[in-house]
Amino acid sequence: MKSRPYGYQISPPERGTSFDNHIERRLSSLRNKFSDGEAFQAMLHSGDPLIYEVYENRRPETAGELLSGLSIVHPGRVGNEYFMTKGHYHMVRDTAEVYYCMQGKGALLMENESGDTAVEEFYPGRVVYVTPCWAHRSINTGEEDLVTFFVYPGHAGHDYGTIDATGFRKRLVQQNGLPTVVDNPLWSEIRR
Amino acid sequence: MKSRPYGYQISPPERGTSFDNHIERRLSSLRNKFSDGEAFQAMLHSGDPLIYEVYENRRPETAGELLSGLSIVHPGRVGNEYFMTKGHYHMVRDTAEVYYCMQGKGALLMENESGDTAVEEFYPGRVVYVTPCWAHRSINTGEEDLVTFFVYPGHAGHDYGTIDATGFRKRLVQQNGLPTVVDNPLWSEIRR
Repeated sequence: MKSRPYGYQISPPERGTSFDNHIERRLSSLRNKFSDGEAFQAMLHSGDPLIYEVYENRRPETAGELLSGLSIVHPGRVGNEYFMTKGHYHMVRDTAEVYYCMQGKGALLMENESGDTAVEEFYPGRVVYVTPCWAHRSINTGEEDLVTFFVYPGHAGHDYGTIDATGFRKRLVQQNGLPTVVDNPLWSEIRR
Repeated sequence: MKSRPYGYQISPPERGTSFDNHIERRLSSLRNKFSDGEAFQAMLHSGDPLIYEVYENRRPETAGELLSGLSIVHPGRVGNEYFMTKGHYHMVRDTAEVYYCMQGKGALLMENESGDTAVEEFYPGRVVYVTPCWAHRSINTGEEDLVTFFVYPGHAGHDYGTIDATGFRKRLVQQNGLPTVVDNPLWSEIRR
């Protein structure tokens, strides 16, 4: 972790050299996230593919620091549902996040604990601002990698448990060849 | 100011529609910042050119929010010194900033109150991370606009006064046709 200002190249992504943390999420880490359980099991048995990756630079987890890096969601679907990230709230709810789309197409699916939902498109050159208190999930609706550059406050933290327990209220699926937002039949408020 | 998540396009820049705050800085607002006073006066009398602009979206000034937008430094020189921003510390010193260079070439000149200095290059695709407690100034060393996308914590604030009083320890000037970092003969520690 550097104690002085520093620069790094993100386009074209020099992933190996620019970052000091690399996270890989395979299908097996997304159990119960996709609606089509049979398609999930079949894909799991055929090789547990890599669904998404995160490259970032570690920083102190304090309010004045910023965590930044690249999110890469690979293209594909489980049944008719697009490859996506687990999705999470920030542990410190009152913290925002900025995404800048560098490559590919897709969407950021968001919801808050009041029951509001939001979907913002990703395409190259577009910024999405996640206002504080909104859970967020990146979804790749295209044929190539969806690459976004993200920045969030150092003290935000990750809460995956809330989404693990309830799922998101909405899903992004392919219908008639097009990305379509539908209600999530498995969404549950049990936890609350 | 939006209360829900939102998206906006920054490349190609749709400046008019994507942002709700626009700041313009002309040469006259940079008095005593450039080392060549005669060149400054001559340029001022010939029309007070626009040196840089900032487009941003307003957000609440709290630790969990993020301020983001575009900085555009136009090309040119005052004498042999490249067009640049005023430069500032954050009012809350212990806050970072992330810059992503979208267009043009230049550098971010930085220093901290311990007397350390740093210069990081800007070119398209490059991120510069300004660690907390470092003053920073964008400088355009190219022939076209230098466009960077910035993100900083909502509670950071701006302290222009410290740099107004002392200047930066270093300058970026054209020597033998190339950008060169030199000591600032006018740098003063009087204030401390």
